[in-house]
Amino acid sequence: MPRLTFWYDFASTYSYIAAHTVGPAAEKAGVDVVWRPFLLGAVFAPQGLTDSPFNMFELKGRYMWRDMQRLADDNGLPFKRPEEFPQRSILANRVAAVAGDRVGDVTRAIYSAEFGEGRPIATDEDLAPVLTGLGLDAAALLADAVSPEGKQALRSNTDAALEAGVFGAPTFTTEDGEVFWGSDRLAQALAWATSHTA
Amino acid sequence: MPRLTFWYDFASTYSYIAAHTVGPAAEKAGVDVVWRPFLLGAVFAPQGLTDSPFNMFELKGRYMWRDMQRLADDNGLPFKRPEEFPQRSILANRVAAVAGDRVGDVTRAIYSAEFGEGRPIATDEDLAPVLTGLGLDAAALLADAVSPEGKQALRSNTDAALEAGVFGAPTFTTEDGEVFWGSDRLAQALAWATSHTA
Repeated sequence: MPRLTFWYDFASTYSYIAAHTVGPAAEKAGVDVVWRPFLLGAVFAPQGLTDSPFNMFELKGRYMWRDMQRLADDNGLPFKRPEEFPQRSILANRVAAVAGDRVGDVTRAIYSAEFGEGRPIATDEDLAPVLTGLGLDAAALLADAVSPEGKQALRSNTDAALEAGVFGAPTFTTEDGEVFWGSDRLAQALAWATSHTA
Repeated sequence: MPRLTFWYDFASTYSYIAAHTVGPAAEKAGVDVVWRPFLLGAVFAPQGLTDSPFNMFELKGRYMWRDMQRLADDNGLPFKRPEEFPQRSILANRVAAVAGDRVGDVTRAIYSAEFGEGRPIATDEDLAPVLTGLGLDAAALLADAVSPEGKQALRSNTDAALEAGVFGAPTFTTEDGEVFWGSDRLAQALAWATSHTA
C-alpha cells in the first residue's frame, strides 16, 4: 500500500484541517498515513522567520483566520480562534511523537481542543483532559513525552522534516520524494502517491 | 448573474493557472468574471515585501516552481520557467487594463507566452507578436496602454485592489466582499459567489 507522510506542528492552523481530513481521504484512496509531528520553528528559523508568518505579515494573518473559518465550515468542523497565537506547541508535539498507534486520535483531539474549542494546549494541565478523554493514561504519556526518548523522537522528526524539504506545515511527502505544502494539497498528494508507486 | 472579480499581475506565477481555469469554471457555475490586472508591487510594499516572496524565501521559491509544473500538468497546460523572475510586468498589466472585451484573451495569451513558453513579456517587442496573434492592432493597443488613460486604468485597479483587501495574486473577490487568495481557491470562490448572492 502506498504511504503518505503527514508533517505537522500544533502551532499550525491549517494542520487542524489536514489532521481531520487526511485519514478518511487516505483510506478512500488506499494510502497509509505516517503521522510526523515536528518543530516548525526549527524549519522557519533558517528562512529568517522568527515568528509565525501570519503575525509577521498582518494582512496575510487577518486573511488566514477568515480562511480557516470558511475551511472549517466547508469540512463540518467547529472553529474557535484561541486567544494566543501561536501557542507553545513543543509539549503537544512531543506527546504526539510518543503516542504510538494512537497518534491519529491524539493529534485530532489536541487540534480540536486548540482550534475547535479555542483552548490552550501548552501545558500538562491543558493536555491531560484531552488525553484522558481518549481513554489514555495522561500522566504516563506526558512523562514519556519529556523523557530523553520523547525529546529525541521529536528531534528526529524535525531533522527528517528538514531532510525531506519541509518548509511549512502542514506538508505531505510521498515515498518518491514529492513535497506538497498546505491542507489544500491533500487530494493532489494522494493522487500522486497512488499513481507514482512502483 | 453573480460576479467574481479576478485580480492578477503578470509577475504572478500562480495567476497563469488561474487565468486559464477561471473562464470555463465560472461559465459552468453561471458566474460572470471581472478581469482586474493590478500592480502587485504596490500591494507588497506596505507588507515590507521588496521582492517576490518566492525570491525572498528560497525554499518556498524552489517549491513553487515544482508546484507550478505539477499544476500545469494537472490542468493540461504547458509550462516553461522564464529565465528572469519576476519579469517587469507593468506594461503587460497596462495592456490588459485597456483591452476592453478582449481582456480574457489578452490575459491568457500573455500568460501563455510567459509561463507556457518561458518568453519575456516586459517590452513592446515582447508583447506585439502576442497581440497580433490574437488579431489585435498591437501598435494601437500598446500606445493606449501607456497613454494617460492607460496608466490611470492600472492605477485605479491597484487602488481598488488595496481597497478590496487584496494582498497577493491571484485573488478572487465576491460582490459581498469575501476574499479568496490563490489559484487553488477558485472552486471555493465560485461556490461562495453562487450561494451568497441576493
